[in-house]
Amino acid sequence: MTANRLRSAALRTAAALLPLTLLAAADPPPANPGPNDIVAAAPPSAWVRIAPEDLLVMELSPDAKGRARRVVIQLIPAPISEPWVKNIRKLAAAHWWDGTAIVRVQDNYVVQWGDPDGEDAAKAKPLPEGVRAFLEQPGDGGARYVSNLPKYGNIFDKRDFFGPPPELNQDGYVIRPHFYKSWPMGSEPLPRTRKAAVAGVSPVYEAWPVHCYGMVGVGRNLSPDMGSGSELYTVIGHAPRHLDRNIALVGRVVEGIEHMSSLPRGTGALGFYETPEERTVIRSVRIATELREAERPRLEYLDSTSESFVAYARARANRKDAFFNIPAGGADICNIPVPIRKITQ
Amino acid sequence: MTANRLRSAALRTAAALLPLTLLAAADPPPANPGPNDIVAAAPPSAWVRIAPEDLLVMELSPDAKGRARRVVIQLIPAPISEPWVKNIRKLAAAHWWDGTAIVRVQDNYVVQWGDPDGEDAAKAKPLPEGVRAFLEQPGDGGARYVSNLPKYGNIFDKRDFFGPPPELNQDGYVIRPHFYKSWPMGSEPLPRTRKAAVAGVSPVYEAWPVHCYGMVGVGRNLSPDMGSGSELYTVIGHAPRHLDRNIALVGRVVEGIEHMSSLPRGTGALGFYETPEERTVIRSVRIATELREAERPRLEYLDSTSESFVAYARARANRKDAFFNIPAGGADICNIPVPIRKITQ
Repeated sequence: MTANRLRSAALRTAAALLPLTLLAAADPPPANPGPNDIVAAAPPSAWVRIAPEDLLVMELSPDAKGRARRVVIQLIPAPISEPWVKNIRKLAAAHWWDGTAIVRVQDNYVVQWGDPDGEDAAKAKPLPEGVRAFLEQPGDGGARYVSNLPKYGNIFDKRDFFGPPPELNQDGYVIRPHFYKSWPMGSEPLPRTRKAAVAGVSPVYEAWPVHCYGMVGVGRNLSPDMGSGSELYTVIGHAPRHLDRNIALVGRVVEGIEHMSSLPRGTGALGFYETPEERTVIRSVRIATELREAERPRLEYLDSTSESFVAYARARANRKDAFFNIPAGGADICNIPVPIRKITQ
Repeated sequence: MTANRLRSAALRTAAALLPLTLLAAADPPPANPGPNDIVAAAPPSAWVRIAPEDLLVMELSPDAKGRARRVVIQLIPAPISEPWVKNIRKLAAAHWWDGTAIVRVQDNYVVQWGDPDGEDAAKAKPLPEGVRAFLEQPGDGGARYVSNLPKYGNIFDKRDFFGPPPELNQDGYVIRPHFYKSWPMGSEPLPRTRKAAVAGVSPVYEAWPVHCYGMVGVGRNLSPDMGSGSELYTVIGHAPRHLDRNIALVGRVVEGIEHMSSLPRGTGALGFYETPEERTVIRSVRIATELREAERPRLEYLDSTSESFVAYARARANRKDAFFNIPAGGADICNIPVPIRKITQ
């Protein structure tokens, strides 16, 4: 075997996970389309533009070579985690994060940012007026705000939802993983009264977003009601699903995750940086509507209720492209990443 | 809420995932021990030293600040993926990787290394004598070498195995995830004859290692029989479980994964670097026995058949430490990372 063949082998191998942008639309459709082939062939109607008012644009200080580092976060739609998302909009409007920093990078876990002086009461940055800190209910057992999440009659009748067919459900954590407006969710039926059950009343489901790679959550104290939203983290490793329903998720990184995930790991406890010099300074955080039109990110996601998305999810669960010999037969919900792309025209 | 409280909140929050080394052995045991408390309290008998002949020590070129970057890989035990592991030992003995490079870093997926000139037949580095390239069976459908894996009578009777109790099994991909000598594995029963089933003969299970964070696999062509082991990759994102049984896994990174996962992402197709300057040069790769005693990594792993490991796995699946309000009730196998630590005395 020549090294030449090895290398081209590696390229073909990897082609099964080719970034979407590299697939030329003019290529003929392959015999066994892989997930990315399906996404590339999705009609324009299957794509949904992300409104600029839902995009948080974070500019980090330039890297060692002077290159700009922009990280774009899509905020999660109401009513999910609504109290924190409202805070985050106020914090961005007040330019509160400008001059704060990335304070923690823990391998295979999270990148966290906020006020590096938060531990020092004398130097800590005060929160803007109107930002609720959610410390008021220390005795309520926690779940009130985190579970301030959609409740539905029968969620699987709603067009908003795509629930993978049961035979493809390889997500071990929840009975009914699904996508809500293209966000990865868990859900379970709420207890029904015996009378309701006997009468055949459909169960009401409670749903919650789940901790996939790139999801953004709220740093907090021991009660999940706590945390203002001023201290945030994003997942840069295997999905820490044990955090689901224990921390409020408020968004996901839709552009520039590599500027977070490739940062040097902190050497202090839990990946906190030990010296100020190690931190990456956050130059600014803005809701995109505050930027000039030309500076706003132009992004769209694949609608989880579209036929293309369903076909994509099926293909992720049962890879039939040439590289694969034994399809997994299913996929956990975090192995069905929602396709997001730049709008180019 | 003061920022002070926020910060200390963040620290306590994170304490649930405190690196093992930070837990002082003298601390009193907590009321609801978390996974790391259990690991910290494990007796010396629960730890197994990794033999130097099973450690591959890779020295990358120093980072921008001149600091050494050492990555240590534990080779998977026989008979798993044995043909490739044998090749890898020969490649290391021949110092074949010295001067090769990290050629690909794809976010939330893999870091890949090998001969950067592999695509150019004129410049490609020849493989050392005796290294089989596994190209001989293009027509055998693939699975022969990848499935050259342990087959057992009833694996769950064997002391080598820890199978999480069924109520904790939240791994959606396989019926029987388990640990074999502290390696994360999937398994399924092989078909029995009707006669054997009627006679009550226990099924024979086929087992295979799974693609958790930090696992190391063999770059290959379209058939899983291919690939010599000279081109390797490690997982730096959410476990790509669809690769299980489709690529041979040969080891795992047991030290220095941060030197791989924090590398700049490649901007070419599939995360390949576009220019030679972007690549990280590999100075040397050695089996640890070739190093002087003082230079050898001294590492040990928690024995997956120990009581401590079972308690640890249960705690990972049902977090009861103070931070958690709603335990997940289970864990996928990649969310039960095998504890590995430096031997300090």
